[in-house]
Amino acid sequence: MRRFVIGSARSLIERSRQNYHFQRPLLSSSYRLLSSIPSSSSSSSSTMAPPVSLNTINPKVIECEYAVRGEIVILAQKLQEEIKTKPDAHPFEEILYCNIGNPQSLGQQPITFFREVLALCDHPAILDKSETQGLFSADSIERAWQILDKIPGRATGAYSHSQGIKGLRDTIAAGIEARDGFPADPNDIFLTDGASPAVHMMMQLLIRSEKDGILCPIPQYPLYSASIALHGGTLVPYYLDEATGWGLEVSELKKQLETSRSKGITVRALVVINPGNPTGQVLAEENQKAIVEFCKQEGLVLLADEVYQENVYVPEKKFHSFKKVSRSMGYGEKDLSLVSFQSVSKGYYGECGKRGGYMEVTGFGTDVREQIYKVASVNLCSNISGQILASLVMSPPKVGDESYESYNAERVGILSSLARRAKTLEDAFNKLEGVTCNKAEGAMYLFPRIDLPEKTIKAAEAAKKIPDAYYCQRLLTATGIVLVPGSGFGQVPGTWHFRCTILPQEDKIPAVVTRLTDFHKSFMDEFRG
Amino acid sequence: MRRFVIGSARSLIERSRQNYHFQRPLLSSSYRLLSSIPSSSSSSSSTMAPPVSLNTINPKVIECEYAVRGEIVILAQKLQEEIKTKPDAHPFEEILYCNIGNPQSLGQQPITFFREVLALCDHPAILDKSETQGLFSADSIERAWQILDKIPGRATGAYSHSQGIKGLRDTIAAGIEARDGFPADPNDIFLTDGASPAVHMMMQLLIRSEKDGILCPIPQYPLYSASIALHGGTLVPYYLDEATGWGLEVSELKKQLETSRSKGITVRALVVINPGNPTGQVLAEENQKAIVEFCKQEGLVLLADEVYQENVYVPEKKFHSFKKVSRSMGYGEKDLSLVSFQSVSKGYYGECGKRGGYMEVTGFGTDVREQIYKVASVNLCSNISGQILASLVMSPPKVGDESYESYNAERVGILSSLARRAKTLEDAFNKLEGVTCNKAEGAMYLFPRIDLPEKTIKAAEAAKKIPDAYYCQRLLTATGIVLVPGSGFGQVPGTWHFRCTILPQEDKIPAVVTRLTDFHKSFMDEFRG
Repeated sequence: MRRFVIGSARSLIERSRQNYHFQRPLLSSSYRLLSSIPSSSSSSSSTMAPPVSLNTINPKVIECEYAVRGEIVILAQKLQEEIKTKPDAHPFEEILYCNIGNPQSLGQQPITFFREVLALCDHPAILDKSETQGLFSADSIERAWQILDKIPGRATGAYSHSQGIKGLRDTIAAGIEARDGFPADPNDIFLTDGASPAVHMMMQLLIRSEKDGILCPIPQYPLYSASIALHGGTLVPYYLDEATGWGLEVSELKKQLETSRSKGITVRALVVINPGNPTGQVLAEENQKAIVEFCKQEGLVLLADEVYQENVYVPEKKFHSFKKVSRSMGYGEKDLSLVSFQSVSKGYYGECGKRGGYMEVTGFGTDVREQIYKVASVNLCSNISGQILASLVMSPPKVGDESYESYNAERVGILSSLARRAKTLEDAFNKLEGVTCNKAEGAMYLFPRIDLPEKTIKAAEAAKKIPDAYYCQRLLTATGIVLVPGSGFGQVPGTWHFRCTILPQEDKIPAVVTRLTDFHKSFMDEFRG
Repeated sequence: MRRFVIGSARSLIERSRQNYHFQRPLLSSSYRLLSSIPSSSSSSSSTMAPPVSLNTINPKVIECEYAVRGEIVILAQKLQEEIKTKPDAHPFEEILYCNIGNPQSLGQQPITFFREVLALCDHPAILDKSETQGLFSADSIERAWQILDKIPGRATGAYSHSQGIKGLRDTIAAGIEARDGFPADPNDIFLTDGASPAVHMMMQLLIRSEKDGILCPIPQYPLYSASIALHGGTLVPYYLDEATGWGLEVSELKKQLETSRSKGITVRALVVINPGNPTGQVLAEENQKAIVEFCKQEGLVLLADEVYQENVYVPEKKFHSFKKVSRSMGYGEKDLSLVSFQSVSKGYYGECGKRGGYMEVTGFGTDVREQIYKVASVNLCSNISGQILASLVMSPPKVGDESYESYNAERVGILSSLARRAKTLEDAFNKLEGVTCNKAEGAMYLFPRIDLPEKTIKAAEAAKKIPDAYYCQRLLTATGIVLVPGSGFGQVPGTWHFRCTILPQEDKIPAVVTRLTDFHKSFMDEFRG
């Protein structure tokens, strides 16, 4: 029975993968057929099947895919359980999750100052105790008091304003101003449980039907394709140019916009991920200006995924927020609808488990803003620890604060180590037969291209796998290393890639390189023409 | 400009209120019209308006309403700001938020043990320090170690499994077993950022179109109407019987089910809120059995909102989970699709700001469960502090633990005080002219009925307000007390109610009663026929 169920779920996944095309036509009649099958609820037999089956759930849910936690990761979790009970079950001792930007799962330590403040805000009763002075830095105690004073009744256990605690939004707005040199309004900030719910909120607002399109980079972070699918819209792809280091060409944006318009799609928004995920490029300011101009001219909302704003590893590139770029062009509220997403999960802090983040919403009318507020209010508010942490990452300790030196040492240590790891892995990938890998200028990933021999394509077909997924699965079962196949992000048809995070701790990197290299050699020996 | 914008938003709200009917027909052609208006994106004028307006956003967003944070609350926030700058601006010194079950915003203190454990898990570096012994109880330190040992790498800053940390789900499942006397499976638990996202997930799964209906109590907690609207389904109302203490009659369920089926609606699920919100009734076990039988016979998913399971105030009633009731009837996985929602925001703990909660999902096939997992994975995971807290409320200190006595004193203190407050407010309401109020057997609310004089109805019409909203707004501007009008929850047409939480601290209750009583008297003097 179980075998059958899994089989049918798999074949569905495979079917949907084989039909993996982004700019799909209006929902096909097969979906209408599915949804018009009468539910079994009209029967009244006492042995009836459960009323919910794959045939009767929302087809948009089935349509949605999220490779970063997809099939390969589910297999990895299974192998990990097997190793726990039988350490010799597999030719490796541990699973190394390079599938997801989850730094602390691979040993990165949290920033001490941030955690001190969070602990004190969680249990303010200790703030006045003498022992606390010995356990916590003076500025973390002071900061905790400042934060508590911003919270009505100092109640860290109360629902807040649905956009987040006003005083914390003030802090964040001040942090944005300091970063950009242009004003930021706390009323534009919506604090959220990480960036993902914020992206969903905007998709929910903008997408009315499958005739509404969202321009997304290919490759893209699959949150976007998943969210567009769940909200019933159409993903309009624009391809990043691998040959120029994943360059974003406005001519490509224009071409794809025109093509989709000619098919009757109303394009509502452009998603730009900067620094890039999974591609790691950092946009040049001139390029960003051209993108802003394009959105303004074409009346598109600019959805700027800027969660890797602290993760830039090359001296020749610098992060510029799209808000700063648009303001520096003289464009204000009336000119451009712009949403910037930020998260506490990335940066040097990597606090994924805290689910903190915000979006800064500018260039929307008051009436639309009220609708965004209403949708936020249905979920009441985001978690307060995440809200506090979002305020901390936007206003870390300053020179002269007691914690500054240790804070800065932790920060620089993490960022410089990430830069070294990125370079080591990039070099290692480029040494592999048939693999080319662009530099990770920023973010947390490498996205190497792999030319798979014809024999691999055939073996993958026989195994009913997409070729890059086949490679990743073979790698996993041989080495315990978890990558995400490029097909989960989208890629130029006929090319194959995988995404690998740069997050394994430095002392593990040599072993990762050796395991990858050995596996790749034997894989190529097996399949080379 | 601002005046104009607010005006147009308001008139929209009013329009949608005037059309306030739940079992609405298929989306009217006016919506199709709205969504087929071409966006301004095809123009390329350099002075174009922002591309997003009320006319071009998702009409489901406009359709959605959430009165608990609606118009009255927005007005209250405005008054609060005014008092800050001008303390004499209004005839009261503070706003008293009785609109929402948010205990800590009104001075309820968190449970010490829970906060100790959270603080230690936030900053595990202090666990080994000697000062920590003086600041924290021994069992909170031990519990923090136990929890950290359940987290891979002890990384409280890492994304967890998308259903939540396995070891914490084990704890929660054990807590459910201890509560019910029937087995619970940790793989059935999905930890979420409060109960609201869990409800959205189930609505997203079940609703395919406006032809899918969800049976909801009237009055209901507006999360349900909002979520059904956002997901494009149809709310099928069943009325609770005010005359029998908000009784839930299966004959009423059957009647409404048949009516909606005759209109071509496929009813997918039944929502039951027990203890009731906003109505405060606690279902009798026999009643629950009949509901289970009804769902089984009719093939409906039972969505059991059990977030007030700890909040029962009368000795003659006891909370029974629907899972326990169905298992005690001999029904298992094959017989009933049942989802139970739980939250850390309610109970005696009232930790709303932590956004913790879970749903226990039973009676779904593996293939559908995989789809639920996939949707959960798109948002990666819920916040870890909320996950930890959900495990704590399901396994609080036990007799013999160092913290037990103080924990139990805090718990009993809060619950018995809530019971006293419920009784005092109930009595006060029942003394008001034209007001009758059922007992709050559980939950955190009273939902009195108010017979408004004909003159009030006319005054409300003149002010373009729903009569109970008019009453609540007058009350707010006269006393600073924030209630939610019954129209935000639904009520038998022609009857008027309001919801009032029982959460003001006990020393404030006399003043609340006096302010309410005085206001009501002068209101009735003004409008009595």
